[in-house]
Amino acid sequence: MLAKFKKHIKRKFPELVGKPFLLACSGGVDSIVLAHLCHHTELDFAIGHCNFQLRGEESDIDEIFVKDLAFELSKSFFSTRFETMDYIAKNKVSVQLAARELRYQWFAEVMQENHIEILMTAHQADDNLETFMINLSRGTGIDGLTGIPEKTDTVARPLLPFTRSQILEYAKVENLAWREDNSNSDTKYLRNKIRHEIVPKLKELHPTFLENFKNTQQYITGTSKLAVLYIDQIRKTVFQREDGIIRISVASVLKLEPLDAHLFALFKGYGFTEWNDVKSLLTAMSGKEVRSKTHRMVKDRDFLLLAEIKEENTKDYYISNDVGEIHTPIHLRISQVLHVKETSKNVLYVAKETLKYPLTLRKWQKGDYFYPLGMKGKKKVSKFFKDEKMDSISKEKQWLLCSGDAIVWVVGKRADERFKVVDNTCEIVKFELNT
Amino acid sequence: MLAKFKKHIKRKFPELVGKPFLLACSGGVDSIVLAHLCHHTELDFAIGHCNFQLRGEESDIDEIFVKDLAFELSKSFFSTRFETMDYIAKNKVSVQLAARELRYQWFAEVMQENHIEILMTAHQADDNLETFMINLSRGTGIDGLTGIPEKTDTVARPLLPFTRSQILEYAKVENLAWREDNSNSDTKYLRNKIRHEIVPKLKELHPTFLENFKNTQQYITGTSKLAVLYIDQIRKTVFQREDGIIRISVASVLKLEPLDAHLFALFKGYGFTEWNDVKSLLTAMSGKEVRSKTHRMVKDRDFLLLAEIKEENTKDYYISNDVGEIHTPIHLRISQVLHVKETSKNVLYVAKETLKYPLTLRKWQKGDYFYPLGMKGKKKVSKFFKDEKMDSISKEKQWLLCSGDAIVWVVGKRADERFKVVDNTCEIVKFELNT
Repeated sequence: MLAKFKKHIKRKFPELVGKPFLLACSGGVDSIVLAHLCHHTELDFAIGHCNFQLRGEESDIDEIFVKDLAFELSKSFFSTRFETMDYIAKNKVSVQLAARELRYQWFAEVMQENHIEILMTAHQADDNLETFMINLSRGTGIDGLTGIPEKTDTVARPLLPFTRSQILEYAKVENLAWREDNSNSDTKYLRNKIRHEIVPKLKELHPTFLENFKNTQQYITGTSKLAVLYIDQIRKTVFQREDGIIRISVASVLKLEPLDAHLFALFKGYGFTEWNDVKSLLTAMSGKEVRSKTHRMVKDRDFLLLAEIKEENTKDYYISNDVGEIHTPIHLRISQVLHVKETSKNVLYVAKETLKYPLTLRKWQKGDYFYPLGMKGKKKVSKFFKDEKMDSISKEKQWLLCSGDAIVWVVGKRADERFKVVDNTCEIVKFELNT
Repeated sequence: MLAKFKKHIKRKFPELVGKPFLLACSGGVDSIVLAHLCHHTELDFAIGHCNFQLRGEESDIDEIFVKDLAFELSKSFFSTRFETMDYIAKNKVSVQLAARELRYQWFAEVMQENHIEILMTAHQADDNLETFMINLSRGTGIDGLTGIPEKTDTVARPLLPFTRSQILEYAKVENLAWREDNSNSDTKYLRNKIRHEIVPKLKELHPTFLENFKNTQQYITGTSKLAVLYIDQIRKTVFQREDGIIRISVASVLKLEPLDAHLFALFKGYGFTEWNDVKSLLTAMSGKEVRSKTHRMVKDRDFLLLAEIKEENTKDYYISNDVGEIHTPIHLRISQVLHVKETSKNVLYVAKETLKYPLTLRKWQKGDYFYPLGMKGKKKVSKFFKDEKMDSISKEKQWLLCSGDAIVWVVGKRADERFKVVDNTCEIVKFELNT
């Protein structure tokens, strides 16, 4: 196996020869064999180990075990301990995801500090098959089936062409010691079941099963990449981005055939999972909304509006001074001026004597009305929004400048008649919105 | 199950209600249950059975069994017997493929004769999973993983949402009899192994494994369809079709990223399987060629030429008469005329007295030369082809009109000086190529 490994490094990873990298080593048979193979290939590497502290003393013994190996091979050793359970509790993620996030973040730091560009991991051929079967059983999208790549800009996985049995064989012949992880998380349980009960049966199906599977997975990965290129094109023509909101013409989406596949590919990146709801949205009434954990999509007449979910700021803010600048919740410059000069949607001049301090900045409420400048009589704010063709997300973002109960300014949109500067106005206050 | 089936028909196959269809029935449990379900749903159908005569008396008993069922349910019955082994020997296909081709062709005939538009087959949920696993083990492309569709324009498969165990349960409860196929072809062996050893383990992985698998397969199918839309666009910009040859600019292909996935998607439809050879062709010398069973692709300077493999006609053809018309191997009109009139590449005038009958039409051979009209001296035909920038496929298609050993006309391209009409020519023969 060493000869084959050396050849593989030379052919597929020439950039690793003579250049230091960081080898991620858990202490398991895969990463122990990988360390020995790299050592005998005379590659220049440091060893990194993460102690997730999930298995008490066992975790600590793993750490010492890997440290000893680094010493034996005369390699630099980096290690860290994570409060993984705390991280899980805080971020509400699975053990698996927590470990991955913590690990890759820490490796990145070590690499940066030590001017190392490449991380090497010990994934092998059976890992890909096992992950494939796990994701098949869970019903994830195609991304769960495409397999881990052999190399990216920062990660190298030179064990991927080798099978678990080849690795075990090498460890035995070379008389290597390694650590077994006897924990039994959900994923581990699945993986073990697949490894011991299903994969051996699969391998009996065809003499070159693993090789065939690898080809199939490459086809899936390739097809998936072409579909991404396709959907990127579609997104360019169908998505209009403005002010953090993506506007999507319903008519242009309805033209896409097959619709389900397009919807899934267009919107899976925004965390949606209820595809029937997403589909119904296309023909729903205005105002209807679908939410994922991170995004919301609102039907607004002929459009879908897609935006990140942000806790909308519904607090009231007070402005007690008529000169100065505020930055929260919006950026307003307030000054006293002698004349009305420039006029724009973002500038408001009001007669100071009409204002009752403190002024308030608040969001729209049902029943709000004002006296739009230049119009006779009052108008409901909701009616104003409608006439302005404002979508529901924009309405929620709209601030109102108020004096007592009265609306002075639908900020950036329309002033109120009652506060306007007239001939006998003594003092003029200028509000300038910085967008 | 009957209630669920009725609901499913009503929702997903409303076109089947009150309209006759043909139900394909092998006599196995799936199609027997399907026939009973359709009967109790009061659908209007005929029963079709194919006897492939692969299992001697067993096959004949199956046929009688299905015929009896049709009688019992008062349905029209159509059956046929195939000499399947002869078909396999003649067409060099697998048993599986032979059975499929024979079956679907015959069903189509029965349907046309009886004005039936839809064929119903008894595929169920486990079939899709089993086929998926078989193709996974064989390493087919993504097309082998996408699953059989629930409906097309002419085929309905209303059992697809039901599992094998649901179907067996219904057969037991209803006390139905069916026929077991105890043959053990390669595919059957694989399918049985998957059915009995692997699928039960897979179902243990997750309580809703089959449902999850169905979703995954839908994602794969969707992604695959998007990739097809994408590659169709690429093909439109990269493939130039002319005269049965597709010209493909090498530079434009080399721009496609990732290259492997693009090559596979662009060319798999032409039967290629040796992808490394296809890839090498891009940088190979002119004249290098890769063949599939049906197609050849030739590197020709900055292009790839893709063409169907046709047995090139290398026979010699004789023309003994100077007036008339021939259609083989090319369409030539030959007449005697008084004057040289229109000139075009496809028309040749020669002095009759220079010709030795019979004339010959033949392909180019190494060493051939001629005296191009208007030039002094002779020229090798190979040199002429090169100067004309003819690609290797066009060269193979090129006919030469000869008189004895001498070339009279590189047909449609260039005449020979020695046979031209001169001032004292008595009789003029006109050859007209119809392309």
